[in-house]
Amino acid sequence: MSSFSADGLTGGLFADAAMADILSDRRWLQAMLDFESALALAEAKVGVIPKGAAEVIAACCDAAFYDIAEIGRRTTLAGNPAIPLVAMLTATVKERDPAAAEFVHYGATSQDVIDTGLSAIAAAATALVVDRLRASSAALAGLAARHRATPMIGRTLLQHALPTSFGLKCANWLDPLLECQERLRGAGDATIQFGGAAGTLAALGDLAIPVSEALGADIPRHTARVRPQALACELGMLCAALGKIARDIALLMQTEVAEAFEPTAPGKGGSSTLPHKRNPVQSVAIVAIAARTPGLVATMLSAGLQEHERGVGGWHAEWEVMRELLTLAGAAALHMQALLEGLEVDAGRMRANLELTQGLVMAERVTFALAPSLGKARAKAFMEAACRRAVAEKRHLRAILAEAPEANGLDLEMLFDPATYLGASEALIDRVLAAYKTIQASRGTV
Amino acid sequence: MSSFSADGLTGGLFADAAMADILSDRRWLQAMLDFESALALAEAKVGVIPKGAAEVIAACCDAAFYDIAEIGRRTTLAGNPAIPLVAMLTATVKERDPAAAEFVHYGATSQDVIDTGLSAIAAAATALVVDRLRASSAALAGLAARHRATPMIGRTLLQHALPTSFGLKCANWLDPLLECQERLRGAGDATIQFGGAAGTLAALGDLAIPVSEALGADIPRHTARVRPQALACELGMLCAALGKIARDIALLMQTEVAEAFEPTAPGKGGSSTLPHKRNPVQSVAIVAIAARTPGLVATMLSAGLQEHERGVGGWHAEWEVMRELLTLAGAAALHMQALLEGLEVDAGRMRANLELTQGLVMAERVTFALAPSLGKARAKAFMEAACRRAVAEKRHLRAILAEAPEANGLDLEMLFDPATYLGASEALIDRVLAAYKTIQASRGTV
Amino acid sequence: MSSFSADGLTGGLFADAAMADILSDRRWLQAMLDFESALALAEAKVGVIPKGAAEVIAACCDAAFYDIAEIGRRTTLAGNPAIPLVAMLTATVKERDPAAAEFVHYGATSQDVIDTGLSAIAAAATALVVDRLRASSAALAGLAARHRATPMIGRTLLQHALPTSFGLKCANWLDPLLECQERLRGAGDATIQFGGAAGTLAALGDLAIPVSEALGADIPRHTARVRPQALACELGMLCAALGKIARDIALLMQTEVAEAFEPTAPGKGGSSTLPHKRNPVQSVAIVAIAARTPGLVATMLSAGLQEHERGVGGWHAEWEVMRELLTLAGAAALHMQALLEGLEVDAGRMRANLELTQGLVMAERVTFALAPSLGKARAKAFMEAACRRAVAEKRHLRAILAEAPEANGLDLEMLFDPATYLGASEALIDRVLAAYKTIQASRGTV
Amino acid sequence: MSSFSADGLTGGLFADAAMADILSDRRWLQAMLDFESALALAEAKVGVIPKGAAEVIAACCDAAFYDIAEIGRRTTLAGNPAIPLVAMLTATVKERDPAAAEFVHYGATSQDVIDTGLSAIAAAATALVVDRLRASSAALAGLAARHRATPMIGRTLLQHALPTSFGLKCANWLDPLLECQERLRGAGDATIQFGGAAGTLAALGDLAIPVSEALGADIPRHTARVRPQALACELGMLCAALGKIARDIALLMQTEVAEAFEPTAPGKGGSSTLPHKRNPVQSVAIVAIAARTPGLVATMLSAGLQEHERGVGGWHAEWEVMRELLTLAGAAALHMQALLEGLEVDAGRMRANLELTQGLVMAERVTFALAPSLGKARAKAFMEAACRRAVAEKRHLRAILAEAPEANGLDLEMLFDPATYLGASEALIDRVLAAYKTIQASRGTV
Repeated sequence: MSSFSADGLTGGLFADAAMADILSDRRWLQAMLDFESALALAEAKVGVIPKGAAEVIAACCDAAFYDIAEIGRRTTLAGNPAIPLVAMLTATVKERDPAAAEFVHYGATSQDVIDTGLSAIAAAATALVVDRLRASSAALAGLAARHRATPMIGRTLLQHALPTSFGLKCANWLDPLLECQERLRGAGDATIQFGGAAGTLAALGDLAIPVSEALGADIPRHTARVRPQALACELGMLCAALGKIARDIALLMQTEVAEAFEPTAPGKGGSSTLPHKRNPVQSVAIVAIAARTPGLVATMLSAGLQEHERGVGGWHAEWEVMRELLTLAGAAALHMQALLEGLEVDAGRMRANLELTQGLVMAERVTFALAPSLGKARAKAFMEAACRRAVAEKRHLRAILAEAPEANGLDLEMLFDPATYLGASEALIDRVLAAYKTIQASRGTV
Repeated sequence: MSSFSADGLTGGLFADAAMADILSDRRWLQAMLDFESALALAEAKVGVIPKGAAEVIAACCDAAFYDIAEIGRRTTLAGNPAIPLVAMLTATVKERDPAAAEFVHYGATSQDVIDTGLSAIAAAATALVVDRLRASSAALAGLAARHRATPMIGRTLLQHALPTSFGLKCANWLDPLLECQERLRGAGDATIQFGGAAGTLAALGDLAIPVSEALGADIPRHTARVRPQALACELGMLCAALGKIARDIALLMQTEVAEAFEPTAPGKGGSSTLPHKRNPVQSVAIVAIAARTPGLVATMLSAGLQEHERGVGGWHAEWEVMRELLTLAGAAALHMQALLEGLEVDAGRMRANLELTQGLVMAERVTFALAPSLGKARAKAFMEAACRRAVAEKRHLRAILAEAPEANGLDLEMLFDPATYLGASEALIDRVLAAYKTIQASRGTV
Repeated sequence: MSSFSADGLTGGLFADAAMADILSDRRWLQAMLDFESALALAEAKVGVIPKGAAEVIAACCDAAFYDIAEIGRRTTLAGNPAIPLVAMLTATVKERDPAAAEFVHYGATSQDVIDTGLSAIAAAATALVVDRLRASSAALAGLAARHRATPMIGRTLLQHALPTSFGLKCANWLDPLLECQERLRGAGDATIQFGGAAGTLAALGDLAIPVSEALGADIPRHTARVRPQALACELGMLCAALGKIARDIALLMQTEVAEAFEPTAPGKGGSSTLPHKRNPVQSVAIVAIAARTPGLVATMLSAGLQEHERGVGGWHAEWEVMRELLTLAGAAALHMQALLEGLEVDAGRMRANLELTQGLVMAERVTFALAPSLGKARAKAFMEAACRRAVAEKRHLRAILAEAPEANGLDLEMLFDPATYLGASEALIDRVLAAYKTIQASRGTV
Repeated sequence: MSSFSADGLTGGLFADAAMADILSDRRWLQAMLDFESALALAEAKVGVIPKGAAEVIAACCDAAFYDIAEIGRRTTLAGNPAIPLVAMLTATVKERDPAAAEFVHYGATSQDVIDTGLSAIAAAATALVVDRLRASSAALAGLAARHRATPMIGRTLLQHALPTSFGLKCANWLDPLLECQERLRGAGDATIQFGGAAGTLAALGDLAIPVSEALGADIPRHTARVRPQALACELGMLCAALGKIARDIALLMQTEVAEAFEPTAPGKGGSSTLPHKRNPVQSVAIVAIAARTPGLVATMLSAGLQEHERGVGGWHAEWEVMRELLTLAGAAALHMQALLEGLEVDAGRMRANLELTQGLVMAERVTFALAPSLGKARAKAFMEAACRRAVAEKRHLRAILAEAPEANGLDLEMLFDPATYLGASEALIDRVLAAYKTIQASRGTV
């Protein structure tokens, strides 16, 4: 389907220009030509082909010399783009130096060119995703630190549970992003495929290994697909982690909840008919992307049963799927960065929502506080009755307790203050921030 | 990611120009404008808006007036392309008739426009897929008829089993294509989505239902996604059926089997280094497509849990996935048509391969033939011994039997002729061909 | 993995006893034996085997005579359960009538037995799913009728949009269930697979078609998998439709929303530590099931590329996946039935939540009402200013308007009453209820 | 669906007794009880609860005391098995020491128990998978070494390409298994989930972190699902790698190819009607498993968007899916071990199949050999003509060349010997074997 782009009707929802450029056919083509160039130079270095020929070949390896649509037309019959590309490169070299044309693509096979080219652009795309994750992580680290003492209700199964802090929520969003970021850095390295027609490098005779080493290739892996699959899996996990944050934000933006909001911008998130709406546009795009990635990861896995020395279709299925996964992950990471960098947090509403159950979410805490004086069993029974009364009379649990002699000695103000019932949240935030700092400091080593 | 195209490096492997045009952003845009035009005209007919306004609106509903890239830029913030499109359409109408501008998109919502537009291009794309299937079916019907008496070995678990005919194999390929073709015709109808901002058509008051009926809409189904999902499922089943044929052909083209071949063409299927190869290029593309579709179908299903009156991401995930599914199915159908119309069948090799087990595949038949004279139990024991001897001595089972007095009365020539052991294959072929004729005759009613 | 059951730690969350029984190994075994029995009787009827032999065979086709674990042990080596089953059936027949043993499984192949058996239990399972859907549909039809005039806010992208009614929401939940129910009835029919070792029925000679017809079989479809795939797709769509309802209910049960609730029961939905919680237990189970089904459907599609006359693994992958899909769909349907039959609706809270935006959701309506007196453009500008003021002063929009001379002549009470702004909701409900009645009336014809 | 088992009709095809035991409900229950026990002891150590109470609790944490079916019955309403389990454990403790009952599950939440329990059994299951992979790797390393000089044809797109060796094919199968093995060892570690009701450990006050550390827990990750997802992905990649080997073996076992075979055993791989067949039973089971795993991995990813502090269904979807993935991977690894340990290799047939193209696969080599004397261009043209003649006359290319004066000086015997045209295959084998040895030596450190 050719290049992905951000120029269509859906604009930047599922793609963006920078990533589209990295993954464009033009860049893929150049990366394949880079392989042919590097191969020729490596072979010249080792003495397989003449140095002069290698130089002519290298000089012809410029994507600007080739017509992508023409390559594509021939690909339809040839079965892969390397076959016409090699033919056209050979013709170009031949015009300059007929003798050199004999040495184009010397000892290599189509899959060597295509896999190496895709790996190169995938590595560049992965690096861009990682950069964007770094920015999201920085934004989350800032939010986690700033809101370490901003209480909000913790919600399990979408029900109010106990208080937590918005800082801890941000730390819990950050933790898997850091993990994905670190994992991606390992999975995204460019690799050089070089095995020749049947993976034996037979055409190069005794110089096969020296050429392979000069080229920087490992053993050929024409039908061993763990590496592209592993990158796909990492992108799938990342999109799930981003999707979780986005879904949480859409939930927090609900009219009834209203605790956090995507940044506003002119033309952003309005409804075509309802001026009061504030739609979670970026969150929606990220959730949509997270809905699309699992199926693509599954394809990378099911396509992995590639027959003998070159697969019948499984390999070919990877080409667009990997680019689509990278495009989607890139767009999700970009949306997330913008979303988090401008996130609006309504700490007052968070505090107000903590009161929606009229103190019931603090009942557990009060029970513990009563235990020393009443004994555990009596404390529990007393509190259950108090809760029932609060619900029945639609009054705040604190007001019920204020009238009860059993609760006389308690500091009800403090006990009903969620800000003082955040457990180990600050310590947990600090752990995630410490991990963040370590990972941030390792930037130079990427 | 904008339009899919066949202009890139992978050319026509996974897309083709005719389908790319049908599913292009330009066509989607026009289909959305067609909705706005039809809506205005329906509302004028019912008396909701002035007839003159409707005519101006309709006159502005030409995709040529709008800049796709500009719509896309605004979509990134707006969250869907209908919002900027309606704004731009309104501005265009306003230039011609300010009063008419008030009536653009009157009572409708973004999802009405987008769903209706996508359904329209999906219907056109489905019709093209069906046309291509018809051609494949015709080719298969021809092959089934022509080869009804061409014996070949039946293979189960990739092992030689019993004889079958190439005609029956073609009928067995045809049968699910016919089923998919019929199912697709039902699933691909264009539908009109019309519900307004919350699915109640409230803005149209008492005239809501009359407008809806004038427009040809059914009840709104903003978050009831059975129909797009059903189309996705049909495309998934079709690609699996096409993939099965393609995999079979790749297996038949194996150097060791060599019973059938994709058509040849200059530049087709050669290897970059191995001139003797005859690669199954079209089969490979179809198998690759069949590897990609299941994940996309799964996405359509998992995206179906769309919240309340408009989904958070689930709906948005459908836009590109449906177009990708249609593009892939279209390309697979086109490859299959070309492949089957030019399929080369080597009946001689099929006959020769039937002899690879030196008669063992006919043992069952001979056992039955011996039963009347020897009794079943003795016949079975005798034949087991004969088979063992044939294997041990690497001789043909017929030769072993020719020396055995127990087999004296048998017509070994006939018994070892696979062409006379094809069971009900002709009757089965005829059933499929009868279904084919019925379906072909129903063409006019699509 | 043998039978699914509801006896384990997760109890009835993902399975239930009635469905587990239908899909049990015991029932599958019996269904395979039923095929062997029916085959023998059909062959006797047509004259292929002796009538007496058929009767002995039929008498031995009782699952109680066979040890499932022993069949399983042999299956591990044999590759499918039909091989040991046929051997054990043959031995059982032989004990009673050695001559009859020759005619067991006469002319059939393993896949004939297994596919027919699985189809039979799948048909029974599908019928149970349909029964449960009928009950859910009845509950939804009741709710839709009862709440046709219960206003609630419509939510798009989880934001308040315009009023709708709970009745319409129920109708919108019902519509896809009806569609799934009708589709499932067609997809779930039991089919008889009968093709013999290579799909030609060769062992039966000229009597092949008569036997096939006596058995009620269609053409063999050993590697044409549209029918099991179609059933899988239907189950996938159904689970998505159920999951959508369940997710909506979980959202409605949110502490901040509190508009509808799963039925209560002793021991249901409590938290282990938080006594005030009311967890959406059944909704959660349904959403979990809907998360699991798309991957299983994808497996059924990707497994569909089955080689030649019997697939290498693709066919085998279907056995447990189909049973798992049916088990999950059955459990989801059962949860949904219980959930809907006891659904608690808080119409007061729905009404209260409509006021959360302090009248902003009604602004569109008032603008229309002002247009005749002010002109459209002025009405729109005036209302935008009024909305801004309402937000800034945190006052109800109605109060702002009550002070404005421009709005003097309006019936603000009526205009801000969402119950009078439900558009075509009643007509839309009626359409769905009419479809429900038609489908319900067709019960007898299943 | 409760425990997976190998006791059913499908026997050991998709499960095995050892793995079924590890992943059984009984073992999961015990692992959950182990968490409760370890928690109590950690809390006693830190001084949160009395030491005596902890000892009583620990003494009650024996799975034998609890009725799985009863837990399951209550789970159906409670929504997860931890709720009834904690209630039943509390009751058991209460009988021995009423005061101690207060301290059961102190400060923990259901997800802490369930996640920790599942992680523990998953870790044990992963270790078993790794053990089985070690055995497969050892078998492959042996085959790679033994067959380093066994020539066979390399096949690309199922067409004969150039010679390779069976040793290199084994090394190419081994390489991804080693990679998966190493990756799995990292991904399968057991982790302790401990966060309390909202992930803040609030109930434990200042002692939260000390308890967490005494327990060996990291930060809570209730809705950060990278770790279970990563394990799922590793299992998915492993099954694809195993599936690739299995599909290759099924292809090698084809009647027409016949180069390698699964080990034979009484009752193994026969057909119910065709005595001469040798079905690839284990390969088929592995391919079937590889067809099933991608959809399960996709489920783990799409289930990852878990809401706020506990997900609505996403978390619950993981429970059975993870166990199913482990069960399937375990069965695939066990089949592979048996298959490889007994693999029959027909080196003679491999050699014979190299001749099927009558020398054409060696044409490239001869062209190179002719280049010094004829010049490259002439050599190429000459050989193309020779190949055409060989095909047309159905003669061996060597015979054609023997008659040509141009080829006079060549050692045709040597040039047409594939054993001398294996390129770098031995060096490549050695690299994989070196990696194997390193990984094998690291065994003690797992």
